[in-house]
Amino acid sequence: MPYDSAASSLTALPKVELVDVGPRDGLQNDAVILQTATKAELITRLVAAGMKRIEVTSFVNPAKVPAMADAMELMAALPRPDGVSYVGLVLNERGLERAIAAQVHEANCVAMTSDTFSFKNQGVSAYESVAVWGRIARAAAEAKMSASVIISAAFGCPFEGEVPTARLLDIVARSLDAASTAGALPTRLVLADSIGAAAPGMVIERCEAVRALTDEANVALGCHFHDTRNTGVANAWAAVSVGVTMLEASIGGIGGCPFAPNATGNVATEDVVFALERSGVSTGLDLAKLRETTLWLGQQLGRQLPSGYSAAGAFPREVLV
Amino acid sequence: MPYDSAASSLTALPKVELVDVGPRDGLQNDAVILQTATKAELITRLVAAGMKRIEVTSFVNPAKVPAMADAMELMAALPRPDGVSYVGLVLNERGLERAIAAQVHEANCVAMTSDTFSFKNQGVSAYESVAVWGRIARAAAEAKMSASVIISAAFGCPFEGEVPTARLLDIVARSLDAASTAGALPTRLVLADSIGAAAPGMVIERCEAVRALTDEANVALGCHFHDTRNTGVANAWAAVSVGVTMLEASIGGIGGCPFAPNATGNVATEDVVFALERSGVSTGLDLAKLRETTLWLGQQLGRQLPSGYSAAGAFPREVLV
Repeated sequence: MPYDSAASSLTALPKVELVDVGPRDGLQNDAVILQTATKAELITRLVAAGMKRIEVTSFVNPAKVPAMADAMELMAALPRPDGVSYVGLVLNERGLERAIAAQVHEANCVAMTSDTFSFKNQGVSAYESVAVWGRIARAAAEAKMSASVIISAAFGCPFEGEVPTARLLDIVARSLDAASTAGALPTRLVLADSIGAAAPGMVIERCEAVRALTDEANVALGCHFHDTRNTGVANAWAAVSVGVTMLEASIGGIGGCPFAPNATGNVATEDVVFALERSGVSTGLDLAKLRETTLWLGQQLGRQLPSGYSAAGAFPREVLV
Repeated sequence: MPYDSAASSLTALPKVELVDVGPRDGLQNDAVILQTATKAELITRLVAAGMKRIEVTSFVNPAKVPAMADAMELMAALPRPDGVSYVGLVLNERGLERAIAAQVHEANCVAMTSDTFSFKNQGVSAYESVAVWGRIARAAAEAKMSASVIISAAFGCPFEGEVPTARLLDIVARSLDAASTAGALPTRLVLADSIGAAAPGMVIERCEAVRALTDEANVALGCHFHDTRNTGVANAWAAVSVGVTMLEASIGGIGGCPFAPNATGNVATEDVVFALERSGVSTGLDLAKLRETTLWLGQQLGRQLPSGYSAAGAFPREVLV
């Protein structure tokens, strides 16, 4: 892997960086709350598999997200290998203060496209969520911490339905402006499909349109896909095909979809990595170690995790008889 | 759906025809053997959802595939609406005689890329499997029946591992030659990834190379993907992006992978249709009816079926509160 090919047309494809969000986005709503030491082992296993950027926890109200109540203890317990960035979710200035105290490398912040979703999640309008992002970006810059902005519901909203491309571009432009005004451009701008509403044709069109803005601002564009309707890997491939070089995904595919209780949530890191590596796109990750991590994590959570790759195993593998 | 877009670059994409293989490929190894009347209802439901070509059964040794032992009874029980083609799997000339007697519209035949897989499955070498295809094609033409050829293990073999592109092209060229010599070009030539070894970059490269041969022969190129490692929808999208206009898939994602017992098998019809329709590619199928069919079929088989779309439901849907 990648498969042997005499003349691949894909050798010009860029490298893609995976950002594993399993320890935060994957675990935050799980029925099983892992011990801090078990979370630290998960993160250490991801680092051993080659992951350089990991969303490890969130600095939100512990009463609302009990699974992340140990954010400070977890950060204190983590080793700090060179070249590895720990990312923490930050939704307001109080959260940023905790993130700074915990010495995370990067804050993941959120700007919303949809007023309804934004009011329900954070009690503010979409434009106000952009303003909050701008204030966090300024404070993070003053603390010499990286900050990134996740554009939530970039491909559809569970409450409002379709989010027009023009609305997405408006929120992206305002998010870049808010950061620029604060003197603090985001490390990454990430289009998030938290409900599995995206399809590859949409992804191509929207990523191309957004890239015109992020390229001009010299900001890296990433995507975050959910596999709710089994389009996660297809959307990741579509994004990479138009030059997106950062993808968020979740080890094992942990993390459900609160808006579709029977469905899976985050696309599995190893499923994306298998599809990319076997297509000649380098991720720098060790698939066997990712799969081992998923099988181990499944034991901790007491169930088989959704990843197709981890269920099926490598191809090619030991010869069958 | 497709989502509202001011200026889609995808309006030039062709229509894609889905061929549902659930009643044959999906059910043949299922632990539950459905009654003939239940199979007929499944097929009738697929027709009502707009499916125009359905692999309904196989004409193979009933001792080896007990679930398909009712092929003659099923064919006699099926209504024959205008414009709908029933396809039957045929592996040898005895099978073709039964298929002719049952008045199927089209025979799906198989040519193998891998000698080991071919010997294990059919007791002949890969080249001999091509010769068998040529003889079936001639006999089918004499009976005025359509015949198509499925190139098995087109992206990898469970026994031999990687199948080089050159080997695939050799088997494709020989399969087209064998039919041409018999005066009976296939209705479709289908590249099958029966073990989930394909990735989108491979699909693009191999489909482009094979299309040079099928276009020259004026034969339609199709693909058949499995979701074993969660790449089925991505591979379908990749194939469509390079002009493949026929895709085989299985309602609900029924049909396992005998080489990966914990994994899913065929990619779900409705998952592919959702990804394509929402990307602006027309399939002519009714997603709501496909999903109803999957939920009904899950009741018949006594379990939730693997389709992500059917588990999660439509997007956008009724507004959440």
